[in-house]
This record gives sequence, C-alpha cells and structure tokens, in this order.
Amino acid sequence: MTDAPDTADNALRPGEVATRLPAATDAGVYFIGTIRTPWRTRADCPKRGSADGPICEIVIDPRWRDALTDIASHRRIQVLYWMHEARRDLVLQTPHRTGRTAGSFALRSPVRPNPIASSLVELVAVDGGTLRVRGLDCIDGTPLIDLKPDHGAHR
Amino acid sequence: MTDAPDTADNALRPGEVATRLPAATDAGVYFIGTIRTPWRTRADCPKRGSADGPICEIVIDPRWRDALTDIASHRRIQVLYWMHEARRDLVLQTPHRTGRTAGSFALRSPVRPNPIASSLVELVAVDGGTLRVRGLDCIDGTPLIDLKPDHGAHR
Repeated sequence: MTDAPDTADNALRPGEVATRLPAATDAGVYFIGTIRTPWRTRADCPKRGSADGPICEIVIDPRWRDALTDIASHRRIQVLYWMHEARRDLVLQTPHRTGRTAGSFALRSPVRPNPIASSLVELVAVDGGTLRVRGLDCIDGTPLIDLKPDHGAHR
Repeated sequence: MTDAPDTADNALRPGEVATRLPAATDAGVYFIGTIRTPWRTRADCPKRGSADGPICEIVIDPRWRDALTDIASHRRIQVLYWMHEARRDLVLQTPHRTGRTAGSFALRSPVRPNPIASSLVELVAVDGGTLRVRGLDCIDGTPLIDLKPDHGAHR
C-alpha cells in the first residue's frame, strides 16, 4: 500500500482544509481486477462517464472469475473502484472546475477519506474474465474493487 | 480488523463455492462513522431499503464533520458502508430467499470479496454530525465508509 503521490494535482487550493488521518485503517480491501480506459492521466479523464463514451474493459483476476456467473443477464452494472491517486485527508475542498469550496461529502470528487468511486455502466459484452462496458471515466489501470447488478435493470 | 464471525449465517449452502483469499489486502479503509438502525441482526433487516422505511441515523466521527459542509443542499445521497459480518471468499452463492445459485458479482448480497454496500437514501435532516435519512436496510452499528451526493438530485 502506498500513499498518494505528491503531485501538483494533490496540492492544497484556496479554501481547502486537511485533517490528520487516523494512525491505522480499520479494514482491508482486495483489488480484484483492473480497469482499462483510454485515459492516461486524471486531466485526460471526462468529468463523468457517458453512455455514449468509449467502450472500456474491466479485467477480472482469475481468482474471482467464477463470480461473474450470470452477470451477462444484467444490462446495467454498478462498478466500485479505488481512486489510487487521490489524497484522503481533505474535509473541505475546492474543485478546480467550479472554484467553489464545499465539504468532501457534498462532492463526488476523488478526494475523500476512502477513495472509492461508484459508476453505473452499460454492460456491452462479457468475454471470459473481461467485461466490455460504457460509462466509465477513470484512469487506465485503476484497481477494481466490486461489481454489482444495478437494481431492477434485468434484461 | 476481525474476521467475519463463524455463525450459521456464514455456513456454505448447496451450490456455493469458496475461493482462497489472497494473503494480504491491497488498500485500507477508514471507518468514518456509524449507522444507527432499528435492526439488530441480519435476519431482522429488510431485503432492500425503502423511501417509506423508518428514519435511521448516520453519525459522523468528529474528525470528518467539516466534510459535511453543504451536504444539506442535496436531497438524495449515496451511502457506502462496510458489511462487517459477511464472509468474503464466495465466488458462487445461493441466496436463502431465492435458492438460486449465481456469481457473487451478479448479486447484491453482502457476501463478496469487498463487503461494501451502496444505498441511495433520502436526506431528511442534518443536525451537527448526525444525518437523519430514509432508505437504509443495514444492521445497527454498521461502519460508514463514504457519503456522496446522488448525481443531479440537488434541492
């Protein structure tokens, strides 16, 4: 486990306030696969995934492939992933796009105590341990942590 | 961090298949608050939260309270929480309610490699570090891991 890199993306902006992180985490997450997208940096990523965006791939680790059984019967799935480049200690933040300071829980920014993103995507195809989906907006190489069927959206 | 308790809830059912969990986790989660509900056991919990269900409380740890700034401007929020009683090693599972075996990623069951739940709730009130919400379905005492505004549902 590594800390978020100290890049310009992670510098404090006006109005931003950091807290002291606890000395230890309370539970552990397994990375269960990898997301492949066309975007190499955070600046390249769209602000929000779109149903007419490019097809991206979710590659599941072999250990978890049987857990995909029956997933093809769902048209829309929820994807949880770990935003590994984001700092975790801000309570107030000022998104670059708006310049308006708000609490971290009032924003869907990657910067939050637990950098877990949740996206709803269209499931286009399942090929062995690889899903092809539309609607993601994350960096290439992002670690996957969960897949769930979207409520009530069965084929 | 403790393992899931070895209760009858966690015994294997017909058709269920477990994998060997990795030796170590890849990232750590902070518990940032606690969810208070009327339900003391998993058997007591409703299958799915409802907008006409009881008001439940989300109590944020003091360290993170300033991160609630502006959250009251959102009517619907997404709540991520840690299902601390669920086992994590099943790839195929047979929910008690249906008796039908499916892959863990084709179900919204608590049993999954990373026991993270995602619920959309109605935000009824914010009182200091306590949110009152409708729509949860988890056990009393469940650890909170994130709050996010729901896409586009601003007051």
